[in-house]
Amino acid sequence: MTTFALDPRLEADTIAIGDLALSRLLLMNDSRFPWLILVPRQVGLAELIDLEAAQRGVLMEEVAAVSAVLLRRPRVDKINVGALGNIVRQLHVHLVARSATDAAWPGPVWGFGQRLPYDVAASKAILGELKQALRLH
Amino acid sequence: MTTFALDPRLEADTIAIGDLALSRLLLMNDSRFPWLILVPRQVGLAELIDLEAAQRGVLMEEVAAVSAVLLRRPRVDKINVGALGNIVRQLHVHLVARSATDAAWPGPVWGFGQRLPYDVAASKAILGELKQALRLH
Repeated sequence: MTTFALDPRLEADTIAIGDLALSRLLLMNDSRFPWLILVPRQVGLAELIDLEAAQRGVLMEEVAAVSAVLLRRPRVDKINVGALGNIVRQLHVHLVARSATDAAWPGPVWGFGQRLPYDVAASKAILGELKQALRLH
Repeated sequence: MTTFALDPRLEADTIAIGDLALSRLLLMNDSRFPWLILVPRQVGLAELIDLEAAQRGVLMEEVAAVSAVLLRRPRVDKINVGALGNIVRQLHVHLVARSATDAAWPGPVWGFGQRLPYDVAASKAILGELKQALRLH
């Protein structure tokens, strides 16, 4: 049995926030958008149907919980949820808080321009806020 | 109480396949990609958290069922699942069968180029195939 490991590209592009019941929660290191990623901590997943039905239900509730937290932030007009996997095959679900004034609106964020990493203070602030909201301490 | 009605833009861009337990299933009228859309038949939904938890579970299982059908088609390398809603606010979930040889790969299909409607024979063929696979007669 192999143990769960994050895809190296996800590892490089994100900052870990913490573990929910099923998934590791990551912050995309891109200050252009509040952008989180859920990665179920199991080996060999690519599609949602690779998860068992009960675990899909858990994943959906984790998507809902993270959506609710993102919706409480200022100037959020829509949550974009996506499981694509064309580049990184490991199953992961994006949750992006979109604003009608953000750079990519109304288009999708995936493949849009260049990632703009957080500076240290900004990443500390958003990580602290999200950990508190999701009770991940 | 208002009754469910499809957003006019979704209505214009798609062909109805049938109704699952929770959602109306639509075929995006775009022959570039096998592209389906699930629309929960309730009024006033925009975000996944606007659905009750039990209904989110049903939606997830409808996503899984449609994914499984799409994955049985030839030359499908990945299913892209997305609930965006930046343009059409009514809650809807895209399911797109992606191939590494399709025009948008590995980028997302949303906002990519121009829709290429099916001709009558091709739309009849894919609608028949999908209705049979999902037992929607």
